[in-house]
Amino acid sequence: MLQKLKQQVFEANLLLPAHKLVTFTWGNVSGIDRERGLVVIKPSGVDYKDMQPEDMVVVDLQTGKVVEGDKKPSSDTATHLVLYRAFEHIGGVVHTHSRHATIWAQAGQPLKALGTTHADYFYGTIPCTRLMRDEEINGQYEHETGNVIVETVNQQGISAKDIPAVLVNGHGPFAWGTDADNAVHNAVVLEEIAYMNLFTRQLQPGVDSMQQTLLDKHFLRKHGANAYYGQ
Amino acid sequence: MLQKLKQQVFEANLLLPAHKLVTFTWGNVSGIDRERGLVVIKPSGVDYKDMQPEDMVVVDLQTGKVVEGDKKPSSDTATHLVLYRAFEHIGGVVHTHSRHATIWAQAGQPLKALGTTHADYFYGTIPCTRLMRDEEINGQYEHETGNVIVETVNQQGISAKDIPAVLVNGHGPFAWGTDADNAVHNAVVLEEIAYMNLFTRQLQPGVDSMQQTLLDKHFLRKHGANAYYGQ
Amino acid sequence: MLQKLKQQVFEANLLLPAHKLVTFTWGNVSGIDRERGLVVIKPSGVDYKDMQPEDMVVVDLQTGKVVEGDKKPSSDTATHLVLYRAFEHIGGVVHTHSRHATIWAQAGQPLKALGTTHADYFYGTIPCTRLMRDEEINGQYEHETGNVIVETVNQQGISAKDIPAVLVNGHGPFAWGTDADNAVHNAVVLEEIAYMNLFTRQLQPGVDSMQQTLLDKHFLRKHGANAYYGQ
Amino acid sequence: MLQKLKQQVFEANLLLPAHKLVTFTWGNVSGIDRERGLVVIKPSGVDYKDMQPEDMVVVDLQTGKVVEGDKKPSSDTATHLVLYRAFEHIGGVVHTHSRHATIWAQAGQPLKALGTTHADYFYGTIPCTRLMRDEEINGQYEHETGNVIVETVNQQGISAKDIPAVLVNGHGPFAWGTDADNAVHNAVVLEEIAYMNLFTRQLQPGVDSMQQTLLDKHFLRKHGANAYYGQ
Repeated sequence: MLQKLKQQVFEANLLLPAHKLVTFTWGNVSGIDRERGLVVIKPSGVDYKDMQPEDMVVVDLQTGKVVEGDKKPSSDTATHLVLYRAFEHIGGVVHTHSRHATIWAQAGQPLKALGTTHADYFYGTIPCTRLMRDEEINGQYEHETGNVIVETVNQQGISAKDIPAVLVNGHGPFAWGTDADNAVHNAVVLEEIAYMNLFTRQLQPGVDSMQQTLLDKHFLRKHGANAYYGQ
Repeated sequence: MLQKLKQQVFEANLLLPAHKLVTFTWGNVSGIDRERGLVVIKPSGVDYKDMQPEDMVVVDLQTGKVVEGDKKPSSDTATHLVLYRAFEHIGGVVHTHSRHATIWAQAGQPLKALGTTHADYFYGTIPCTRLMRDEEINGQYEHETGNVIVETVNQQGISAKDIPAVLVNGHGPFAWGTDADNAVHNAVVLEEIAYMNLFTRQLQPGVDSMQQTLLDKHFLRKHGANAYYGQ
Repeated sequence: MLQKLKQQVFEANLLLPAHKLVTFTWGNVSGIDRERGLVVIKPSGVDYKDMQPEDMVVVDLQTGKVVEGDKKPSSDTATHLVLYRAFEHIGGVVHTHSRHATIWAQAGQPLKALGTTHADYFYGTIPCTRLMRDEEINGQYEHETGNVIVETVNQQGISAKDIPAVLVNGHGPFAWGTDADNAVHNAVVLEEIAYMNLFTRQLQPGVDSMQQTLLDKHFLRKHGANAYYGQ
Repeated sequence: MLQKLKQQVFEANLLLPAHKLVTFTWGNVSGIDRERGLVVIKPSGVDYKDMQPEDMVVVDLQTGKVVEGDKKPSSDTATHLVLYRAFEHIGGVVHTHSRHATIWAQAGQPLKALGTTHADYFYGTIPCTRLMRDEEINGQYEHETGNVIVETVNQQGISAKDIPAVLVNGHGPFAWGTDADNAVHNAVVLEEIAYMNLFTRQLQPGVDSMQQTLLDKHFLRKHGANAYYGQ
């Protein structure tokens, strides 16, 4: 079942160590089959070097129940499912503890758009969630983590498609995309931006968001209806 | 004698350069056979690339005397032995000069828990020892280094099992775990945390420990009686 | 047509990931055949690992029209052409988003000469452009990016040959050289300098340009009429 | 002539890129045959990947004249020779532009001993030279670079053997050792220390040198008459 999607999700998970976004098993990627309402996700706590495509776990989008697979799904599965249900256009989700995105998450601060590297992929500030409340943490924690991400995206008032990432306060980044591979692509860019913003602010304390005109230009030449980047 | 443990300790030592925790021979890992009261440890000053499993040295837990092996044991052996005697549940010990953990040790400052990466492995602040006294340094130095680690853990009032590392002031980190491999695992996480805390504090000077509720949640979902992480 | 130049430009493009100057496809190198008035450049949005020499695109120096090639040229082609037309002695151009040069570009600050590493390649401050105006961004953006680089070099009053790079404000570095390979060489040095200046300034806030005598000595022993470096 | 020394110096030069101490050809290592009064050094501006043992150049210790070799010796040869003549016990010299040691050189600041990593190799502060005078730079520059290093070591009042490195102000590090390999070993440690000191000071501005007792203990357990480290 879903062999092609399992292969895609498997390969996208392997991109995490390849891009040095994870240490040990600290990351997970999923992909969705919207027609069947099924999500394929990495198993929990399995080493990347031992993992096989058939280890990917299939869960039901609505109930979260395992539909296929011998292993337990990632402990962050409930978070992924909330994002798929809230953001209808996304096809893949990724969570990492990549160093610099996590640093900003630990500082509880958003990533402002400071240059065209950011503008090529994210159409404005990448927000950081509020702190989660004790009852959320002690309740259905992973589910509530999804909820606070959705709340943060909605408050920002921009489509999840145009700013495909959020920092979870005190935790780390979640990113998404059109499919599992694209989600990881965005997570790589996010980490790159997080590194550069850290030191841009060291050079220029109080640095503010870039010109709106330049943000528009770069985002829209790659993503708008009149995009002219690529083949 | 102890072929399996020698192999384990040998492999755990090789993980140090693999995870970029050591330059040259600046690190050592040991493992213990509690039943026989014997500790297996890396030889002193031997290159990782030349090292063989049979180079591992077997020493007596109580006396520190070499029981088997052609080579001299690590010059930090006495420190390892003090830790094994004080912390009864640990099975492996590791010492490195990994860059960022050493930076915090040189600054003489503890690593507060600033995010869930920390909380997944360490149940609170990773302490830094006091400066050692002249008579300790001029006396049985390596033995006294162990003592000041134990003193620091005891003052913190939390089990060595729940916070499996200490920074030795002006020196570098010691970490431990259920066995040699797990000790190195904790040393890798420690280095990752040390990196992230350095720059979290750059972004937010005066940043304080994370919410206790979130610390509890993450540590206990992996380590508590009701743990639900992994397979 | 231009097989040798295509091969050179292809190889110079591959140096970008080899020197860790680019993530994904974020960089492009070109070379020029001055006699024929033709420029060879990387295609837009093509992965480095899939790229072949025959994918290089040939464009007309004056009109920018594609003379040969199945693929669209880099979206930054117009910027390269402006530089070739303005700086008659250069044979190659490169654009990257290399981390530390981009950090300085995002901070909108020039790279002062702080040591002999800089002086060996750049004969003084590497300038950062002014912010581009809305009408420039909304107009022929890539063409105007070239114009603001040329304006910046001219204001500095030093030959483009002697300071072969400029930071584009809020964007990233452009560098050039005698050919495609030499342009990339300069981009590597630029990134190295950008890293070192960032932390030199952390150690010594307000650090100013190095002694003019030492700048002269190092630049001229490698580049002047009386150069005595190399074979 | 001197085949064994050439091979040693060749291999020591290759350690520079292996330890990521150099970019391109920015480094050079030499070794000396004290009995014959001959120094073997890397040729100027030759790529590490093309270099062969027979490319090493033999020069006379006193006159600096090339005694054997088709290629020009490193442009820093005169500096090496001054060091060999002044420091009678050293057998190898290395110069690099390694990133963090160079950062401290560009800041014109010495590297204080802040921890045992430093103390294991350098018996106190690694000094930074004064700025060179215009007449020195415009005169026999490379020779005068050697002189200012020697002047700096002599002012410190400690044997060159016990603190085997100096930072040249606005330039970068020179290190030395018992032979070419040991010189490179010290240069690697120097770079490691330079990295750690940079961020130790970020964590604790105004941090001062470590306890003298601990410095003594670590240096002397490896280097003193009663050393007990290693096999």
